[in-house]
Amino acid sequence: MFDPVDKLKEFVRHPSVSTDPKYRDGMQGAQEFVSGLLRSLGFAVEVVKTGLHPIILAQREGDPSWPHVIIYGHYDVQPPDPLDLWKTPPFEPTERGGRLWGRGAADNKGPLMTHIAAVGRLLERNPRLPVRITFLIEGEEETGSPSFLPFLEKYQHRLKADFVFLSDTGIPREDQIVVTCGLRGLVLCEVEVTGARTDLHSGLHGGVLRNPIQALAELCASLHTPDGRVNIAGYYDDVLEVAPWEREELRKLGTEEEAYREFLGIPAFYVPPGYTPFEAVRFLPTLEFNGVGGGYQGEGSKTVIPSKALVKISCRLVPDQKPGKIRPLLYKAIRERMPGDVTCRIIDQHEGTPYIVVPPDRSNTPASQPPRLARAFRAVDRAVIDVFGRPPLYLREGGSVPIIADIKRVLGLDSVLLGLFLPEDNLHAPNESFNLRVMQKGMAVSEKVLAALAGG
Amino acid sequence: MFDPVDKLKEFVRHPSVSTDPKYRDGMQGAQEFVSGLLRSLGFAVEVVKTGLHPIILAQREGDPSWPHVIIYGHYDVQPPDPLDLWKTPPFEPTERGGRLWGRGAADNKGPLMTHIAAVGRLLERNPRLPVRITFLIEGEEETGSPSFLPFLEKYQHRLKADFVFLSDTGIPREDQIVVTCGLRGLVLCEVEVTGARTDLHSGLHGGVLRNPIQALAELCASLHTPDGRVNIAGYYDDVLEVAPWEREELRKLGTEEEAYREFLGIPAFYVPPGYTPFEAVRFLPTLEFNGVGGGYQGEGSKTVIPSKALVKISCRLVPDQKPGKIRPLLYKAIRERMPGDVTCRIIDQHEGTPYIVVPPDRSNTPASQPPRLARAFRAVDRAVIDVFGRPPLYLREGGSVPIIADIKRVLGLDSVLLGLFLPEDNLHAPNESFNLRVMQKGMAVSEKVLAALAGG
Repeated sequence: MFDPVDKLKEFVRHPSVSTDPKYRDGMQGAQEFVSGLLRSLGFAVEVVKTGLHPIILAQREGDPSWPHVIIYGHYDVQPPDPLDLWKTPPFEPTERGGRLWGRGAADNKGPLMTHIAAVGRLLERNPRLPVRITFLIEGEEETGSPSFLPFLEKYQHRLKADFVFLSDTGIPREDQIVVTCGLRGLVLCEVEVTGARTDLHSGLHGGVLRNPIQALAELCASLHTPDGRVNIAGYYDDVLEVAPWEREELRKLGTEEEAYREFLGIPAFYVPPGYTPFEAVRFLPTLEFNGVGGGYQGEGSKTVIPSKALVKISCRLVPDQKPGKIRPLLYKAIRERMPGDVTCRIIDQHEGTPYIVVPPDRSNTPASQPPRLARAFRAVDRAVIDVFGRPPLYLREGGSVPIIADIKRVLGLDSVLLGLFLPEDNLHAPNESFNLRVMQKGMAVSEKVLAALAGG
Repeated sequence: MFDPVDKLKEFVRHPSVSTDPKYRDGMQGAQEFVSGLLRSLGFAVEVVKTGLHPIILAQREGDPSWPHVIIYGHYDVQPPDPLDLWKTPPFEPTERGGRLWGRGAADNKGPLMTHIAAVGRLLERNPRLPVRITFLIEGEEETGSPSFLPFLEKYQHRLKADFVFLSDTGIPREDQIVVTCGLRGLVLCEVEVTGARTDLHSGLHGGVLRNPIQALAELCASLHTPDGRVNIAGYYDDVLEVAPWEREELRKLGTEEEAYREFLGIPAFYVPPGYTPFEAVRFLPTLEFNGVGGGYQGEGSKTVIPSKALVKISCRLVPDQKPGKIRPLLYKAIRERMPGDVTCRIIDQHEGTPYIVVPPDRSNTPASQPPRLARAFRAVDRAVIDVFGRPPLYLREGGSVPIIADIKRVLGLDSVLLGLFLPEDNLHAPNESFNLRVMQKGMAVSEKVLAALAGG
């Protein structure tokens, strides 16, 4: 068997940023690395071309009566900027303090390597293990998985399985595993406001036209109420009531608001009334500004009225909000609120549907859960108790893995989301890292779950 | 005599951007170019060191009874970005369509070269001309002239003169010269808002903290009233009533709102009630956003909650507003309006006092105007009629030349501001250019004014 940490380092070294064309070589390198690794474990690997970055479909076939689990992951990562804030270069993986540092170490290369290594070990011990395994590893997760849905539709005959198993969600502490049973959806767009046809001298022309930065600021300022809710009519119409067991499970998490505030480094929270910060992030939708730009941002000053300004907006949605309903509400608000003395262009970006699965043995569980899914949930429960010493918590999470809802819709499959990354892993931020003790234990859990499935 | 256009090209070729340290060589090149040119005209040139970019002090001494005129100019230029919008590179001067294109062609290298060439011609024809001339040419105008005031204080004994003559203001049309008799002042600052200590994943943490872009947008949106006035208590307290002759002079300008709107390329004006756009730009203060930035601005999307966002603010002031009074009002508004769940830092930038001089023969002219200043105004009037075929208009302007107020305060001198650049010259914007016919005629006016002064 290979050394999982060495292999992870090799994986992180490929700068596989999917949103930026200049990382094309890094994307190809990461894809070939994963494909090769899975081939070495005996998988039949197909690299499926898409419009952008290929999907790796690696299968271990077997008797049709065997359980079939799909393990999902992604080999692409977020852009590394701002580069000057990294302590060690993002694509030169470094081991220190029991962690591996580098862009993608936690999202998603480390957790994906955890499952690949678990499968490797299991098959080494029992090459005839009666379980069918399909690795589905995409390269467009960080750009919203545009090719994944068409792929699912085209390949669904090869993806008749019992459930999907993956680790692309978080845990609060090293000793507390969380099985994520809900994810937020997404609606993204960019708004570009144009004032004059060119940048203008702010002395010669200042005072006669609305500055596009002002128009953009007025729009952005209008999109929240003072108490922190999204200020768009109808936005909350389809938000699910939170079940009492969900609030209870969250309380068991035992997280401290003050510690969380200090971790974030903010003077105070900004949370809609009636929710704790931990509830808000899981049970409420948001509207965030991911970037804003316009005019002169360099050193010193430039007394210019810029021609253009832009803002990048992302809405996180919760069950049962629908991207197809929220996007038009958002666009309507933007268009209605934009004054007539500037022009405004909205650029569509990707979207994803929120997701929820209720695990077995919870008060409001539907009796109709497929037996092998229920068995997987129970196997995870036992394996986590064995390895981590306490049962997992079943929680919704604030992040988005839009393909989970797509899988549910196209393949009819639910997902068992075994959380593995920690808050301090700095996902999507400078100095990302992955805890290598969690990686080792995660491998043990993954191995036990797959073994239990084969044995049942 | 040298060819003025060739010399201007040589001047523009030096990339003398004063705000950005990477253009240090261009700054030095431009300074040495001007110093050398003035030496070749027989001036005693002293290059006065400052904390940043030296000031060129070039003098032609003479009998103390001779009139003494100080000609002011600046050899530094605005940054050239955004570079991709230039049709020809900003520092490769190109002649086309009767214009010279390049950064600084109009602000201020072309107008300055106009006066240098006029002096050159005049002295070639009459080497014993009984007029003392001092060129005062700085390299920090575009960064707010931080060294100019200390320079004035230190060198005032060598700057006892009758008035200051310069061209760093505009004209509306090629055939209508404007003598600028008022300028707006400036107060600049940068506001940096910080939320979390690092960029955050907008899924994992979205919904618990105020996004710094939101806080900044809320601040910026609060700084204007819906009708376009600056929304800060006391901001308009010291704004001068506009004299009837000033509105009348402005009407003579004959500018058309619709043509101006089309020139700007905006769907509609945004002007406080009771003012035309042409009045607003001259008689009212402003608060503009010169740049905004934060988070991810690259291609595609990055679902991040940025740690920081910044905005660059510039206020244009009119007589008798005082920067020392407006800056605290602005800072108080910013601090009071910034919510307690983010932190905010205000970075001081430069400032300048607004200026007004009332030319002779206007209804409310004080009788006490120094005779040589009044003579200069009248000489300009005649020279402009001779060369351009119609008298100049005496107008305030929206731009700022903060050193004009400093000169008034320290040296007690008023300035005769002969406008030379056109609206289409694109100052502070991509594709800056200078009209070479205006340059030739401006040289003739400058020559006549200096000759008249010597002969009177």
